[in-house]
Amino acid sequence: TNTPLLCIFYGKLFLTEAFNVIMEEILHKGTDLKEKVCEWKDPDQLRALLDLDLREHGESHEQLLQRVRDVARYSVKTCHPRFFNQLFAGVDYHALTGRLLTETLNTSQYTYEVAPVFVLMEEEVLRQLRSLVGWSEGDGIFCPGGSVSNMYAMNIARYWAFPQVKTQGLWATPRMAIFTSQQSHYSMKKAATFLGIGTDNVFIVQVDESGSMIPEDLEAKIVQAKSKDAVPFFVNATAGTTVQGAFDPLNHIADISERNGMWMHIDAAWGGSVLFSKKHKHLVAGIERANSVTWNPHKMLLAGLQCSVILFRDTTNLLMHCHSANATYLFQQDKFYDTSLDTGDKSIQCGRKVDCLKLWLMWKAIGTHGLSERVDKTFALARYLVEEMEKRENFKLGHFVNVCFWFIPPSLKGKENSPDYQERLSKVAPVIKERMMKRGTMMVGYQPMDGRVNFFRMVVLSPQLTTKDMDFFLDEIEKLGKDL
Amino acid sequence: TNTPLLCIFYGKLFLTEAFNVIMEEILHKGTDLKEKVCEWKDPDQLRALLDLDLREHGESHEQLLQRVRDVARYSVKTCHPRFFNQLFAGVDYHALTGRLLTETLNTSQYTYEVAPVFVLMEEEVLRQLRSLVGWSEGDGIFCPGGSVSNMYAMNIARYWAFPQVKTQGLWATPRMAIFTSQQSHYSMKKAATFLGIGTDNVFIVQVDESGSMIPEDLEAKIVQAKSKDAVPFFVNATAGTTVQGAFDPLNHIADISERNGMWMHIDAAWGGSVLFSKKHKHLVAGIERANSVTWNPHKMLLAGLQCSVILFRDTTNLLMHCHSANATYLFQQDKFYDTSLDTGDKSIQCGRKVDCLKLWLMWKAIGTHGLSERVDKTFALARYLVEEMEKRENFKLGHFVNVCFWFIPPSLKGKENSPDYQERLSKVAPVIKERMMKRGTMMVGYQPMDGRVNFFRMVVLSPQLTTKDMDFFLDEIEKLGKDL
Ligand SMILES: Cc1ncc(COP(=O)(O)O)c(C=O)c1O
Ligand SMILES: Cc1ncc(COP(=O)(O)O)c(C=O)c1O
Repeated sequence: TNTPLLCIFYGKLFLTEAFNVIMEEILHKGTDLKEKVCEWKDPDQLRALLDLDLREHGESHEQLLQRVRDVARYSVKTCHPRFFNQLFAGVDYHALTGRLLTETLNTSQYTYEVAPVFVLMEEEVLRQLRSLVGWSEGDGIFCPGGSVSNMYAMNIARYWAFPQVKTQGLWATPRMAIFTSQQSHYSMKKAATFLGIGTDNVFIVQVDESGSMIPEDLEAKIVQAKSKDAVPFFVNATAGTTVQGAFDPLNHIADISERNGMWMHIDAAWGGSVLFSKKHKHLVAGIERANSVTWNPHKMLLAGLQCSVILFRDTTNLLMHCHSANATYLFQQDKFYDTSLDTGDKSIQCGRKVDCLKLWLMWKAIGTHGLSERVDKTFALARYLVEEMEKRENFKLGHFVNVCFWFIPPSLKGKENSPDYQERLSKVAPVIKERMMKRGTMMVGYQPMDGRVNFFRMVVLSPQLTTKDMDFFLDEIEKLGKDL
Repeated sequence: TNTPLLCIFYGKLFLTEAFNVIMEEILHKGTDLKEKVCEWKDPDQLRALLDLDLREHGESHEQLLQRVRDVARYSVKTCHPRFFNQLFAGVDYHALTGRLLTETLNTSQYTYEVAPVFVLMEEEVLRQLRSLVGWSEGDGIFCPGGSVSNMYAMNIARYWAFPQVKTQGLWATPRMAIFTSQQSHYSMKKAATFLGIGTDNVFIVQVDESGSMIPEDLEAKIVQAKSKDAVPFFVNATAGTTVQGAFDPLNHIADISERNGMWMHIDAAWGGSVLFSKKHKHLVAGIERANSVTWNPHKMLLAGLQCSVILFRDTTNLLMHCHSANATYLFQQDKFYDTSLDTGDKSIQCGRKVDCLKLWLMWKAIGTHGLSERVDKTFALARYLVEEMEKRENFKLGHFVNVCFWFIPPSLKGKENSPDYQERLSKVAPVIKERMMKRGTMMVGYQPMDGRVNFFRMVVLSPQLTTKDMDFFLDEIEKLGKDL
């Protein structure tokens, strides 16, 4: 039996049996079209089923294995081909192998001493990603998610513009202004709050029909900020917006940034992966003119959560200068190896999870070419879906890169002009979603945006998907919503 | 063979074979006393051995399995009983199972919809940890590491003191002052930089011989800050300092905080786990008087990286008010379930890794009682080591909770008064460390501090350890250093 001081033999046995459960319940059943995406339970039901309470004494081997089964059973299968709910989905077995290896090695990415393989590997992966952006030099680091990557960009930009901020804080600087589009990710606002800049100093730039930033409005907002005595220092362009998947006009924004002496950041958390695709990389033309780029391989590439990088064009070691605290207990300078490899002081973290291995191993496995095919397939299936929706009566498309659409139930057909049309339409998606979750057949997200009532955002990612799955998706939406 | 679009059958096969490599190379060999803790290679050698380059085309099954073996082989075995180098070590098989399960389920901790099990589980684990602190109510969240937890505390304190900061930034507030001891963790300075407060506004409070904050100096520093027109709003007390393992006098600091209307934070990243131990929890007497507590179960409890929480006594939903951005695409209010369970907006992240499962499963496995035995064992072995060092000639102890000591080679014995003694002593630890790494027999860290030259910090964590391992440690240090 298990003891707090651990029996290794028993420990390995448990781990092996649990691995079999994981293979069976998640990777086998969880990817099986005949199984549910989720086994929906209300919170109270689920609490009762899980018996979450923690007690004085431990449980038996069998009870613990049952815990593993329960967690697997009641969790959403994000690897299921019909999980379309977030900007991540599917499973890549090589990446997953990298993740299990990372967890077992349990080290921190701060010094060469404790993470020799991963320090070199991170360096190499960052170099490769930068080279796709178009930079032969530069810097970068893996962060716990795209939101934190965006925060890094904002903080480094601020230090670049006003280095005194590191020691004296914002009281020693003029008010600063940040520019980002109305459809950019909410992490920009969170960053402005966390960094002490404040959301009032985030100037929201308008977008066109497709969700893409209007450069003329950026110029107008810069004038407006200046008139309020705020110094424009940071513009965020989005490459692949969260909901519509729109790409801001990067070259145009770069011109404006240069003219105004601003740092240009590109939030390519979602869209950065088009850099792998010869066919689609025109969407990010001009990306190399940015000062920094956020890119989440855990989204379109399927590296698995969390896998996000912030890349810098800078070659003056800004990242280290801005973040370093020179802790002598960790970053001793009298070590016997080249301590420039102890990159941990570039980070705002101390212990830092290894996030490079999963991407590296997947990349080794399928090559740059394989990753490009993956991106192309995502676009091809999205196109198929758009074409099929156009053939069907009850779907109304917002023509975007992410497939965003309304399902118009027969009862609302032709009623576009009745005064309660929008209100009634806004209630359709939530009901379809509820029915879908309770049936467990698939998962897809909806949201309102900029005056448009609730619409679905369909995210097509998993490499296992075929046009059959797309047809199923359309049929199922019709089935769930036709009586509304 | 592997294709970018994935063959599931092949994927599972690879994963299974890789799991066997992980079991064999890391968990079996890596915990075997006859094997090395690390297979030291210089960066250039290692680069050559690993072939890190990423290419156009993928590799074969066999090549990829060899990659897995290489990564395992050249990585440091932090699970090895002789890894004493950081404040994490060892392996707990139940926690590891939780981690593999987490990786395979690949979801994000932001909404009940995509993480039903983990939303409820996080809630429960936080409740249990708070109750150990002594709070029947409150709030909290899992963060990517203790440094980020500390940042959360500082940001919430700032919002509590000056809520206008969220919208208007620091230009709308007076200068603020932070207080923390000279031996507190460097994340306090990183937080002050990142949050825009600046390191000049971090007032460093002196410590006594044992490394514990001197409350009288805290009062003096508060007076000093006020005289410079900085508003004291945040004091950080450390429960278990990084190097010496010292505990600041919490009740005394709480008195001073209350008198000055300040937020009191406790960085218990390292020492928080003594709350499990009846014997040792007196070290954190007064912890319940804090406003917030950082606690890293990935350290003394062996939950595995990353596992860190920030706990709040607050019951007014400060965390949500301060961080929320109300993104309508994720946190829709017209969902069919209780959306107060969508806790993601409390976070500064968007996607957030699931960090609660590993702790929960380990806790279920060995119970509160088992965790308390684990903590007690850590203290008992440290005590044994201290007693043994006192018996040996060449060890000089700094009497701390973490066992910090100098090895005095015979050549320096009795030379305490020669002018170059300190300088020569400072060179001993780096050489012993180099020899140790190259032999691969064990790993332990050293550092200088506050005018003391390089000394070792011995961290005793793994539940597999016995007094035999302690004896080995002492013998090995003697062997490696006797000719210096
Ligand atoms: C455009 C964009 N930027 C940033 C993020 C945040 O990434 P993360 O969830 O890794 O914090 C997202 C997440 O969906 C996003 O769509
Ligand atoms: C006292 C203390 N606080 C905070 C931290 C930072 O924790 P993390 O490495 O999880 O960021 C450490 C790390 O060693 C620590 O010792």
